[in-house]
Amino acid sequence: MARKASLSGFPEWLPQERLVELHVLDVLRRTFELHGFSNIETRAVETVGQLLRKGEIDKEVYALSRLQAEEGEASGKEDPNQLALHFDLTVPFARYVVENAGHLSFPFRRYQIQKVWRGERPQEGRAREFTQADIDVVGDGDLPFRYDVELALVIAEALGALPIPEFKIRVNNRKLAEGFYRGIGLEDTAGVLRSIDKLEKIGAQRVAELLQEELGATAEQAEAALKLASIRTEDTSFVEQVRALGVSNDLLEEGLDELFQVISEASRRAPGRVLADLSIARGLDYYTGTVYETVLVGHEALGSICSGGRYDSLASKGSRTFPGVGLSIGVTRLVMRILSQDFASASRSVPTTVLLTLATDESWSEAQDIAAQLRSRGISVEVAPKAEKFGKQIKFADRRGIPFVWFTREDGSHEVKDIRSGDQVPADPALWTPPAEDLTVQVTPASVPTA
Amino acid sequence: MARKASLSGFPEWLPQERLVELHVLDVLRRTFELHGFSNIETRAVETVGQLLRKGEIDKEVYALSRLQAEEGEASGKEDPNQLALHFDLTVPFARYVVENAGHLSFPFRRYQIQKVWRGERPQEGRAREFTQADIDVVGDGDLPFRYDVELALVIAEALGALPIPEFKIRVNNRKLAEGFYRGIGLEDTAGVLRSIDKLEKIGAQRVAELLQEELGATAEQAEAALKLASIRTEDTSFVEQVRALGVSNDLLEEGLDELFQVISEASRRAPGRVLADLSIARGLDYYTGTVYETVLVGHEALGSICSGGRYDSLASKGSRTFPGVGLSIGVTRLVMRILSQDFASASRSVPTTVLLTLATDESWSEAQDIAAQLRSRGISVEVAPKAEKFGKQIKFADRRGIPFVWFTREDGSHEVKDIRSGDQVPADPALWTPPAEDLTVQVTPASVPTA
Repeated sequence: MARKASLSGFPEWLPQERLVELHVLDVLRRTFELHGFSNIETRAVETVGQLLRKGEIDKEVYALSRLQAEEGEASGKEDPNQLALHFDLTVPFARYVVENAGHLSFPFRRYQIQKVWRGERPQEGRAREFTQADIDVVGDGDLPFRYDVELALVIAEALGALPIPEFKIRVNNRKLAEGFYRGIGLEDTAGVLRSIDKLEKIGAQRVAELLQEELGATAEQAEAALKLASIRTEDTSFVEQVRALGVSNDLLEEGLDELFQVISEASRRAPGRVLADLSIARGLDYYTGTVYETVLVGHEALGSICSGGRYDSLASKGSRTFPGVGLSIGVTRLVMRILSQDFASASRSVPTTVLLTLATDESWSEAQDIAAQLRSRGISVEVAPKAEKFGKQIKFADRRGIPFVWFTREDGSHEVKDIRSGDQVPADPALWTPPAEDLTVQVTPASVPTA
Repeated sequence: MARKASLSGFPEWLPQERLVELHVLDVLRRTFELHGFSNIETRAVETVGQLLRKGEIDKEVYALSRLQAEEGEASGKEDPNQLALHFDLTVPFARYVVENAGHLSFPFRRYQIQKVWRGERPQEGRAREFTQADIDVVGDGDLPFRYDVELALVIAEALGALPIPEFKIRVNNRKLAEGFYRGIGLEDTAGVLRSIDKLEKIGAQRVAELLQEELGATAEQAEAALKLASIRTEDTSFVEQVRALGVSNDLLEEGLDELFQVISEASRRAPGRVLADLSIARGLDYYTGTVYETVLVGHEALGSICSGGRYDSLASKGSRTFPGVGLSIGVTRLVMRILSQDFASASRSVPTTVLLTLATDESWSEAQDIAAQLRSRGISVEVAPKAEKFGKQIKFADRRGIPFVWFTREDGSHEVKDIRSGDQVPADPALWTPPAEDLTVQVTPASVPTA
């Protein structure tokens, strides 16, 4: 499984691996639709001007040019009309909302599952082309806070339905953190967040030094900020722990209340899966309230498999602003891990349930009639292309993992053989159906402990 | 419907339009899987070297470069390692087969539904980014001719399940045409095919002139080639019509026999949908036997909505060759037409079947329990974010086309209202289910005549 990609950073799957990915995509689609999210797709390209709308891009972007470009065509980095591949689904979605605001009803709930591209150096868990699955709710002017709670529940349900190990959705709130920093006298809250974001990578000692060296914090301020970041609870007890630090600030109170709402509801509905983690900072992203990150337990080095948060202004159009809250699942990152760790596998490598064998080459057309009868009941069927020896036709099925072969006798009677057990029984093309577990490909978790 | 794309040639759909596209994609996937085709996806990029493998590209290709490229990175047209977006799914599939030959079992049946990109001038029916749905069967060394017959049947079934008007799959055979041209003494068969390909565009008179001026054909030879191209039958009577032209050639006989097999089977199974059309040439494509093209009746100007053919060598690896036969459906072209002509529409714009209203803001959490019960039976549910006046909550549902609203009384009883009829009845969250036609979004053909 998980062979080396022929082009570094551009993974491709074998058919049986793709079945696992399709299963993941189908589970996500079904979960999102059960929660009333509408699907959209946006084009793969944006203009560089659009991509730079929120300021400097910290992602490596692929620009496009026609191979037979003519003089004067947009092709320089400085040209805002230059086309480039999108590096996430948030920027294109924000543009889509603004362009189509007159045709959407708000709050607009959408899911979007597409490839994105980043010209980064490929490494474990990081590809140049990968699939993201995003859900967002966007309001026109305002958006009730309840959606921040709801999205944590939807994601917990979606990830919980996948063949992956235990996961933890770690939630924090920017208002809580920023209010706290202000409360202790640190005004460059973005700077503090950027330092705190490095906690896992460089450790508390170095972060304390950074806060003092780069932001002019005192040793006490640095210690308080680090104390806040060390709070991590599976229930709402984080509130008392924060209060015990004795800092008072209105924004802090607002953030505490919001995070309390998320954790109190989620700890009841998805116990152990959603927790308050006051170290979560989400670095350079422009969130303004709730922030989410998700780790696979035992696979923390993989990085976050699902992140997001609340924006006061996902997009704006004149004086109209569109606040949003959303999360993005790294589908390719998850599927790579599922495949490389054998967390799940497909019951066979083809959709086919039955191979219709041929007794004579002339019976091919008649076999098509039988195939049509079986397919009308949702059974996937292939007809053998040639009347080779039956042993060879059975081997053809066996090699593909097709579980049943069908024989039509000269007297017009039929038999079907389960090539795993060897059992062979009479069958009527108008009535026969396979056991439910053989009707379609099953993707089943391996026996390793999963969530 | 079908608003103007904000970037010319890059169409995007509104949520209710996307539901129509999703329906088309779901129908194709289901049909292909019922016939035992495995799904794969290939990366969006190929190297320019790979794209040029079959010689000059007549498509406009988008090349990639990192926006922050460093000196010495591949970025010139002459560099075979330069990355570019694929312009079809055949070239990537051929590469995939060669790279993974050791992991596939042949004949390999695959379907592939992905975006492709061409930097052409956008026009009606021609976009710069569009989705193709391809099916191919590929053999290792040889591939029985039967698959040429089978693929015509699969495509007729797939297109027949879509909400589109009547269509005609026009089939020809390169051996038949080339054998005939040789039989009348025209050796530059590729040249003749290229001229015949212009028949619909420039007419018989001009083609006759081209054949004489450019290929040195006599008036009689030109007349014979045009006579062949004028043959079009819904049954196998084309054989007699060709024989009546009195040309004798072995390759012609082989082609006649092959086309006979396709048409005799298809005219029986998909009457009126598959026909022999001896004018089909498929221009510059490298087919070696059967060729297919498909028109929507009454929409001929749209161009072919599904084309393909047989390759003696789709790919090769050392001395190993992989013959293939396949077809490609222009999904975006079809969906654009379905939307612009209102051939079909979605029963609502959101997946949601029920909106749970709130009597008080505090009942939100309880409503989540009811929602979970309904969702466990496959019912798509949204919970209102706030306890606004019921009239406002009902309007919220109505605006989205959500057919049912749910009320939970203070005494714990429940009622559900069909907001289309106004009927309101008691309901049990553990038992209630909507009528089947309201459970999921229905995409139904309009009352215009469809196939």
